[in-house]
Amino acid sequence: MLFNIANVAARLNKELSAYEFGSHPAELYDPVYYILSLGGKRLRPMLTVLGAAMFTDELEPVFKPALAVEVFHNFTLLHDDIMDKAALRRGQPTVHEKWNANIAILSGDVMFVKSYELLSATDSKLLPEALQKFNECAAKVCEGQQLDMNYEQADAIDEKQYLQMIEKKTAALLGFSLELGGLLGGATGKDLEQLNQLGINLGMAFQLKDDLLDVYGDPEKFGKQVGGDITANKKTFLLVKALELAKGEDKKKLAALLADTTSKPEKKVKDVCALYDKLHIQKLAEEKIESYFAKADKCLIAIRGSLYRKTYLKQFIAKLKERES
Amino acid sequence: MLFNIANVAARLNKELSAYEFGSHPAELYDPVYYILSLGGKRLRPMLTVLGAAMFTDELEPVFKPALAVEVFHNFTLLHDDIMDKAALRRGQPTVHEKWNANIAILSGDVMFVKSYELLSATDSKLLPEALQKFNECAAKVCEGQQLDMNYEQADAIDEKQYLQMIEKKTAALLGFSLELGGLLGGATGKDLEQLNQLGINLGMAFQLKDDLLDVYGDPEKFGKQVGGDITANKKTFLLVKALELAKGEDKKKLAALLADTTSKPEKKVKDVCALYDKLHIQKLAEEKIESYFAKADKCLIAIRGSLYRKTYLKQFIAKLKERES
Repeated sequence: MLFNIANVAARLNKELSAYEFGSHPAELYDPVYYILSLGGKRLRPMLTVLGAAMFTDELEPVFKPALAVEVFHNFTLLHDDIMDKAALRRGQPTVHEKWNANIAILSGDVMFVKSYELLSATDSKLLPEALQKFNECAAKVCEGQQLDMNYEQADAIDEKQYLQMIEKKTAALLGFSLELGGLLGGATGKDLEQLNQLGINLGMAFQLKDDLLDVYGDPEKFGKQVGGDITANKKTFLLVKALELAKGEDKKKLAALLADTTSKPEKKVKDVCALYDKLHIQKLAEEKIESYFAKADKCLIAIRGSLYRKTYLKQFIAKLKERES
Repeated sequence: MLFNIANVAARLNKELSAYEFGSHPAELYDPVYYILSLGGKRLRPMLTVLGAAMFTDELEPVFKPALAVEVFHNFTLLHDDIMDKAALRRGQPTVHEKWNANIAILSGDVMFVKSYELLSATDSKLLPEALQKFNECAAKVCEGQQLDMNYEQADAIDEKQYLQMIEKKTAALLGFSLELGGLLGGATGKDLEQLNQLGINLGMAFQLKDDLLDVYGDPEKFGKQVGGDITANKKTFLLVKALELAKGEDKKKLAALLADTTSKPEKKVKDVCALYDKLHIQKLAEEKIESYFAKADKCLIAIRGSLYRKTYLKQFIAKLKERES
C-alpha cells in the first residue's frame, strides 16, 4: 500500500460504505447509514491506522477495528443530539428530527452493538485487551456527556472541571483510537501508554480549537455559524475563562449578557466577543492549545520506533494544528 | 458448592450487589443501581449458570459473565420504558420518570458498556465466540424492539409476524444466556446450538405465558393489574389471534372495542375477554405455550450429557411451566 494520509481516508470510507450493518427493519438501520453518510473528518479511525503504521506495514487487519471507533463516535453523536435537542448535524437534520426520538435511541443502541462487532475483527490474541480498553473508554465518554449536561445547568464551573469533562467526553476516545492502532500494530507496555496519552493531548487540543473556532474562526472556512456557542450560552473554555477572569463591571456585564434572552444574537455575540478581547481570552486559549500540542509532541518522541515511521502521524498532527474548520 | 436453584439465585444477587459499576457522576450511575435493585426473576443469568452446570462443576468463572445478560436485559428495559412512555417498572417509578429521559438514555448506554465489561470476564480463549454471539443477540433484541414499535402502529399483524417479533425481542436473549452457559462450561458444536434453541423455545413460551397471565392470571398472584394489555390495545398473542379469528359481528365488535377510548377500562377488559372466550383464545394460547415447552424438552434430550446433570435445568423449566406471576 502506498502510504499517504489521503489514501488512508479513502480506504476507510470505502470500507465503511461496504460494511453491512443490517437492513430489516428499515426504521432501525436506515438512520445508521444516514448518519454515517453525513461525512466528518474520520479523525478517530485515521488515528488508529496511523498508530498501527508506526509499528507495522501490515495494515489490512487494522481497518475494520479502526471503524469501530468511528461507528462508536457516531453512536454518541446520535444520542447526544437527542439530549441536546440539536436540529442539525453537519448541516443536515439530526436523526431524531428526520425520524423521531425513539428511533434515534434505538438506532444509536444498534450502532453501539455494531461498534463492538467491528472491534471483534481484532486478532483474537489481542481482543481481550482491546475490548477491556474500549469498555473503559466508552464508560468515560458516557461520564463526560453526563458531566457536560450537569455543567450546562451549573452557574459556573472552573477550568479544571471543564478540562476534566472534555478529557472524558472527547479526548478519551482519541486516546483509545491511537492506542488501539498501536496494539493492532504490535506495540506493547509503555508505548501503548504513550500512544494513549498522545491521543488524549490531541483530543484536548482538538476540543479547545473547536471552542476557539466558534468565535474566532473564519466564517467562510468554519462551515458553522460563528458565535453559535455564545448564542447558546455554551460553557466553552472561552466562557469558563471569561467567567473566571472578569471582575467588577466586566463581571456584571458578562452576567447580564448571559441572562439576556431578548437581544438579537448578533449583538450578544458582538458584546461577548468584546469582553473576550478585553480579557485576552483568545490568547489564553491559543496558549492552552499550544501546550497540549507540545505535550503530544513529547509523547511522540518518547515512543520507541524509527523517525521515518513517526512521519505519518507527525504530518497528521501538523494538519490538526493548522485546521481552520 | 451445594447446587440448588435457590442458592444460585442468591449467589447471583450477591455478586450483582457487590459489583462496582461506577460512582461519578452520580446522575449517571445512581439509575444503574436503582433499576438493578428493583429485583426481577434473574431468569437470564440463572439460565447461564444452569447451562454451564450441565457440563462442569466449576461454576466460579460463570457468575460474572452470567451477570452480563442480566445487566444487558436491564439496559433494554431502561430504554424500552422511555420509548413506551412507561411510568412504572416493577411497581416503582421508571428511571425517566424518577430522573428524566436524558439521564435514562445515558445511564442505559453506560449499562450497555458494563454488560460488555462483565462479559469480558469470560476466559480469553472463549471470549471471541462469546462476544460474537452476544453482538448477534444484542442486534436481534434491537430489531425486535423496533418491530414491536412498528407493529403497535400497524392495523393488524399476523401470528407469524408476532412470533418473529418476540423471538427477536425476548427469546433471542434467553437462547444466548443458555448458550453462553454451555460455552463457559465447555460445551461445543451441536450442543451449543441445541442450548440456544432450547433457550429460544423457553423464551417464546415465557412471553406467550406473560400475554396469557395478563388476561387469565390470578390478580393476587400476578402482581400487575389484570387486563393491562387490553386497556393499552397491546398487540399480544391473544389479540393477534382474536383479530385473525373474529368474523362478522364479532369482528366489528372487536374493532369497535379497540377504537373505544371513552369507556371505563373495566368494561373494555370485560368485553374483550368475553370475545376471547367465545373464540377460545385461552386454549389456543395454552396449546401454543405447550408446543414451545415440548420443543424445549426435545432440545434438552438432544444435548449430550448425563441425565443427572440435566436435572437442574429440568427442574427450572418445570417451575417456568407452573409460574403464575
